[in-house]
Amino acid sequence: MTKPELGIIGGGQLARMMQESASTLGVRVRLLAEAADVSAAQVVPDHVVGDYTDLDVLRKVVGDAPVITFDHEHVPPTHLRTLAEEGVVARPGPDALLYAQDKAAMRGRLAGLGVPGPRHAVVSTRQELDAFAESLGGYPLILKVTRGGYDGKGVWLVRSLAEADAAFEALGSSAAGTQLLAEEHVAFQRELSVLAARRPSGEVVTWPVVESRQEDGVCREVTAPAPDLPPRLADQAREIAERVASELGVTGVLAVEMFQTNDGRLLVNELAMRPHNTGHWSMEGAVTSQFENHVRAVLDLPLGSTRPRAPWTVMVNILGGKVTDLEAQRAVVMAQDPDLKIHLYGKEVRPGRKVGHVTAYGDDLMDVLARARRGGRLLEDGAVDE
Amino acid sequence: MTKPELGIIGGGQLARMMQESASTLGVRVRLLAEAADVSAAQVVPDHVVGDYTDLDVLRKVVGDAPVITFDHEHVPPTHLRTLAEEGVVARPGPDALLYAQDKAAMRGRLAGLGVPGPRHAVVSTRQELDAFAESLGGYPLILKVTRGGYDGKGVWLVRSLAEADAAFEALGSSAAGTQLLAEEHVAFQRELSVLAARRPSGEVVTWPVVESRQEDGVCREVTAPAPDLPPRLADQAREIAERVASELGVTGVLAVEMFQTNDGRLLVNELAMRPHNTGHWSMEGAVTSQFENHVRAVLDLPLGSTRPRAPWTVMVNILGGKVTDLEAQRAVVMAQDPDLKIHLYGKEVRPGRKVGHVTAYGDDLMDVLARARRGGRLLEDGAVDE
Repeated sequence: MTKPELGIIGGGQLARMMQESASTLGVRVRLLAEAADVSAAQVVPDHVVGDYTDLDVLRKVVGDAPVITFDHEHVPPTHLRTLAEEGVVARPGPDALLYAQDKAAMRGRLAGLGVPGPRHAVVSTRQELDAFAESLGGYPLILKVTRGGYDGKGVWLVRSLAEADAAFEALGSSAAGTQLLAEEHVAFQRELSVLAARRPSGEVVTWPVVESRQEDGVCREVTAPAPDLPPRLADQAREIAERVASELGVTGVLAVEMFQTNDGRLLVNELAMRPHNTGHWSMEGAVTSQFENHVRAVLDLPLGSTRPRAPWTVMVNILGGKVTDLEAQRAVVMAQDPDLKIHLYGKEVRPGRKVGHVTAYGDDLMDVLARARRGGRLLEDGAVDE
Repeated sequence: MTKPELGIIGGGQLARMMQESASTLGVRVRLLAEAADVSAAQVVPDHVVGDYTDLDVLRKVVGDAPVITFDHEHVPPTHLRTLAEEGVVARPGPDALLYAQDKAAMRGRLAGLGVPGPRHAVVSTRQELDAFAESLGGYPLILKVTRGGYDGKGVWLVRSLAEADAAFEALGSSAAGTQLLAEEHVAFQRELSVLAARRPSGEVVTWPVVESRQEDGVCREVTAPAPDLPPRLADQAREIAERVASELGVTGVLAVEMFQTNDGRLLVNELAMRPHNTGHWSMEGAVTSQFENHVRAVLDLPLGSTRPRAPWTVMVNILGGKVTDLEAQRAVVMAQDPDLKIHLYGKEVRPGRKVGHVTAYGDDLMDVLARARRGGRLLEDGAVDE
């Protein structure tokens, strides 16, 4: 097998979609997959099955790949530092990735940069939590484990001290180094997201600001661009993403999730340093997708245009639902809307699991939204009117 | 390895680009590759390396794939008939594929359907050739081997009987069943191409008619749609493609290459029954690419919209030239035009070999043409002004 240009750690759908772009650009990928038949392992011949928490497995995979990148943020930071000392070029590197792996570190750093975010405190006891609540004027507030959470897991809305038990229990069973982060419960109109891509040489691009709709902490729907967003806030959001990417030394795609508050401010909620669910719309909706620009950025290639290709693009996630035979249902959706773009990840359907997404685009937002939602519903539950 | 949904015979760039669409749609592919590291083998994990002229190799690959399709037309028809008797579902099937494999059969069939084409005759001796030339009013004429030619190979412009020697020599060393087809030398303004996709259930779609520019029988550049094509001719061209697809029972993509003659008629030049170089523009230029609709069509899935996404799309082929390190040159082109879409096939550069293509799109034809040509020149020869 010829030497790869890029190693990817993790074999989920993000790695699969990176591979679709890598194939187009003529980039050879080597993959570390969690299991033999995970999503990306189905489309990357040069893959090793192994455990990304095992340093020797990581060494074996990255061996002759000049650059490695990630499908997720869960590779132990200590391993990344060891590999860096051994000369492995990881993008993003461990110093930047820390802020996507550890929410307390992220909050502290962003506050230091003056980037607006919710009020917050690291709490290690119920007394500290209560004191922080008092400083906010009382409950409710948000508790998060600082490491390892995703898709709403490891996040609790806490209305009283008694409701914090689950969070403290989770903390007790978490890996060493995990803390609890308490944040004010922000009264927001909606959630926004901005993606940036940054090269090691410093070039940064951002895509238009999008609106995302979450249910139970899981992304359901993304509208690009965010409707009715005042230009001043759109500019501010893109500037924040650019600034965070640059100040934190991010390489590859950075996703900055934000709240648009009821009083019209932006507060940064979360960071991710990889292609992100709120950027899937860009596959058809922008000149260059987040996956292509992630590959370009981590290889230090000049970045592609992030210009939108249609006035409106809407992406709807397919979560595991009533439809268990996605292959059969695919045909129903194709027949119903020949303009809809269907993405399936080769994953077995399990309740609530992300197994694909659909994208619609066009001139009329209401029509685009309706088409994307109808396609999503059909692939998830098999019927539109229920 | 899980059972594939689709088997592809041949591991060139067409199979690679089919796989990019298959990955998006969640379709599992098995590939028969000519060698370990050919273009598509780099992106299809479930591949077998073997010789497509060996029936036992074909049997092994298609084993549990419910449908097979092709990267090229060179699988021996006798093998396809044997496999069909054994229950293998090939799309296109051997009865249709014959007309893409054998130019004499194609000419005879199209003439029978009343589809306009150049005057032609199968000639087996110099006397027959001379008689045909006389019936046309003299030389020049075109000679073609009926089987195995591609990209201008196996085609001769013959200005006199003496110039037919090369063709008769090629005939002598050709496989059994190969004949020489003589065709009138058409005085044409330009070459056009129409792609259709057809499902076994009968649904047919066509993409807009494009103009293609060939050099030495090799496609250099495609403009979509064909500029200044009278609507009457555009309609006629699409009707011809639909009719040929239906009458010949084609499944998958059919490419119909045509001449637009100096006196404003359309004459069919060649057929191909697979995604075709004149359809690469559709990857960014149409809602559904030829590769996605080929995969959908051969799996008998409803076809996607062929609507163009931009007023003008231009594709320029990258042939092996002065640039030998495509990976290094890729960065130069990316820096120069962030809107250009670059496709590299993972093939070693050899003189004149198709190793990639670039696509530009936009509102202004002159600008789009200039950008695509500049990108193509940079990737081929490394400089624009020479």
